[in-house]
Amino acid sequence: MVDAEIVAIGSELLTPFRQDTNSLFLTERLNAMGIEVRFKAVVGDRRADLVDAAKTALRRADLVIFMGGLGPTEDDLTRECVAEALGRRLRRDPDIIADLYKRFSKWRTGMPANNERQADVVEGAEVVPNANGSAPGQFLRVEHAGTARTVVLMPGPPHELKAMFDREVAPRLGKGRQEEFIAARELRVAMMPESLCDSRIAPIYTRYQDVETTILAGAGDISLHLRARAASLEEADRRVASLAGEIEDELEEAVYSANGEHLEQIVGYFLQLQGATLAVAESCTGGQLAKRVTSVAGSSRYFVGGAVVYSNALKTQFAGVPPELIAEHGAVSREVAASLAEGIRSRSGSTYGLGVTGIAGPAGGSEEKPVGLVYHALSDGRNTEVVERKFPGDRQRVRSWAAQQALDMLRLRLMRQ
Amino acid sequence: MVDAEIVAIGSELLTPFRQDTNSLFLTERLNAMGIEVRFKAVVGDRRADLVDAAKTALRRADLVIFMGGLGPTEDDLTRECVAEALGRRLRRDPDIIADLYKRFSKWRTGMPANNERQADVVEGAEVVPNANGSAPGQFLRVEHAGTARTVVLMPGPPHELKAMFDREVAPRLGKGRQEEFIAARELRVAMMPESLCDSRIAPIYTRYQDVETTILAGAGDISLHLRARAASLEEADRRVASLAGEIEDELEEAVYSANGEHLEQIVGYFLQLQGATLAVAESCTGGQLAKRVTSVAGSSRYFVGGAVVYSNALKTQFAGVPPELIAEHGAVSREVAASLAEGIRSRSGSTYGLGVTGIAGPAGGSEEKPVGLVYHALSDGRNTEVVERKFPGDRQRVRSWAAQQALDMLRLRLMRQ
Repeated sequence: MVDAEIVAIGSELLTPFRQDTNSLFLTERLNAMGIEVRFKAVVGDRRADLVDAAKTALRRADLVIFMGGLGPTEDDLTRECVAEALGRRLRRDPDIIADLYKRFSKWRTGMPANNERQADVVEGAEVVPNANGSAPGQFLRVEHAGTARTVVLMPGPPHELKAMFDREVAPRLGKGRQEEFIAARELRVAMMPESLCDSRIAPIYTRYQDVETTILAGAGDISLHLRARAASLEEADRRVASLAGEIEDELEEAVYSANGEHLEQIVGYFLQLQGATLAVAESCTGGQLAKRVTSVAGSSRYFVGGAVVYSNALKTQFAGVPPELIAEHGAVSREVAASLAEGIRSRSGSTYGLGVTGIAGPAGGSEEKPVGLVYHALSDGRNTEVVERKFPGDRQRVRSWAAQQALDMLRLRLMRQ
Repeated sequence: MVDAEIVAIGSELLTPFRQDTNSLFLTERLNAMGIEVRFKAVVGDRRADLVDAAKTALRRADLVIFMGGLGPTEDDLTRECVAEALGRRLRRDPDIIADLYKRFSKWRTGMPANNERQADVVEGAEVVPNANGSAPGQFLRVEHAGTARTVVLMPGPPHELKAMFDREVAPRLGKGRQEEFIAARELRVAMMPESLCDSRIAPIYTRYQDVETTILAGAGDISLHLRARAASLEEADRRVASLAGEIEDELEEAVYSANGEHLEQIVGYFLQLQGATLAVAESCTGGQLAKRVTSVAGSSRYFVGGAVVYSNALKTQFAGVPPELIAEHGAVSREVAASLAEGIRSRSGSTYGLGVTGIAGPAGGSEEKPVGLVYHALSDGRNTEVVERKFPGDRQRVRSWAAQQALDMLRLRLMRQ
């Protein structure tokens, strides 16, 4: 088993505003190659700190990946600090210099002398081409303190790093023999509280010692990430598929996706498959339901449109809700939700209509109708189904839960079609 | 100057799916107290790795904050590993034990023996109450390898950590004398390319050596974070205000907020101030414009509602766009945008109407009307203004740019009112 440490370099990554996200990409790729990430570190652009972080990583990990600090400015210290931590010199590479001059001449500008620093290479390192930028990477296998180490230097901008890793670094890492393979799968579960979901599946996944299960919960939306390691990819796949199957048997139709698709994608598949169309009339979700449906490319094939009806007048005008109905039951009611769904369906001529009305908060709640109370309705022209829910959390969370509930009603209806 | 290292503990933080975000909160709070974060580390639930990370941090930082690994399970090793790194013992605190038994009796369940581990305290540490959970924190000042160190252990769940830091840890840290203060401000800039913005303000902010400027760019939305350190809070505030003033003079009305408010909040302020109302008719943004406007609490006071008009039929039905106009100019045209804005305004009776129509992609583009082409219109009943833009990026980015452009047109109009 190869152990890795990822070191992200840059003072901006130590502010409250910015965060390393490259390491998530790298972890996914490294895991797929059977390499485990044991440590992550973030360090700023100070020479002493960077040397310290490099020495610490080289002491404890077989593979050390440094990201960032390869540009031309005075703050870009990764090359020299890694060399110092390894006790090696830098050499200035003439091919890189020539390449830099070529680049700058193409832009018809002189090259600032600073840029030559990008040609500094740690003694013994291989230069790794950068398809998307001027700073090349470096790849090095060394004996360090009596142990074999692999050291990689990559640029920080995500589009440079990702392309360089996949094209250049992964093949070089793969040259060692691979002892372990990792398979992964993502199941998604709608409208189930996290604690209930976990209590139902824990007895299952705890029996799979070789599959790691990570549960991430959003508003009415749970992701179950399953990852197995095995001596072959087939074996890893088989274990993940076996656990996924058992979980699907337990949770039944609450599992809406076995491959990580989002609920709006699943609903879109079903609508297209059945040649059906959708229109929505939403109050408290304020456009979020339409936004999610239309975030899917090609959604114009099944999404007719919708109305965001905050005022009572618009509920009547766009969705045909009778003013008397609102006066009698209130805008947040089972009856108005049903009328929104029916009205938007008949006015737009769509197969299905969804209506949502509720109290997202923070104000507007009462004892009888508290913040978080939402009515969701689905109409197909013959029947109208209404679901009443009381959601937890703040305004944004209530809106997210409500949009998810509306989409899930539609999914369940389409599945039974 | 006090230097800090933040160590996040938990194997889930070394997967591709989860990331430490507590450190952003802590960094903001620590910075405000004049404490600089020099290193961040992430380590899993392995004993040897955790001891290694603790020793590394204690060697190089004055203040070390450990987050996570304080629960009752076998995987929760922070207490014993920090004790080992410090060369100290753990003592089992009888008050914590008593407290745990009280908690469990309230829930009318027996306490699993495992839970007693939460009462283990590093020798010499003060127990820090946890208002939102069962695992207390720990606070310790030690001499370590001849240097004064402050060591803090906090639970990982964000709502526990945040409350504990603000109520319990910050006052304890503040007891040392504070030598530096940090002031911060966030300016926000609409619809300006990042490179143009930077080239205009770089000559200004580079003159402020004592103010750190961080530029974060979204789709048509730039955040400028300014942070100054000084010997007094007044001096730090003065320096930040001075730089902010110069930047506002340079960028003029492109700066829409001087205190970090989002564009939809600013638009909401202006609408309320002027007693005006808004309705929107959106095609390619698919609900995103309405969603942003309604994400502001209290937006029902000025947002009447909107229509998401994907199909041509709904453009006519909800916003009164004449079918001939669509036939003549196409759904994506200057004329249809204007008609959407005018139609939604007059039908909903709002003061202002916004209309958006464009091609978000990935399909649907042509040579004449490429992906990214969007028309934005603003009508006040007398005049209708139309802006044509060609946005870069993928479907989500084009939608974000377009919603931002529509909101910004309205902001500029309201400012000049």
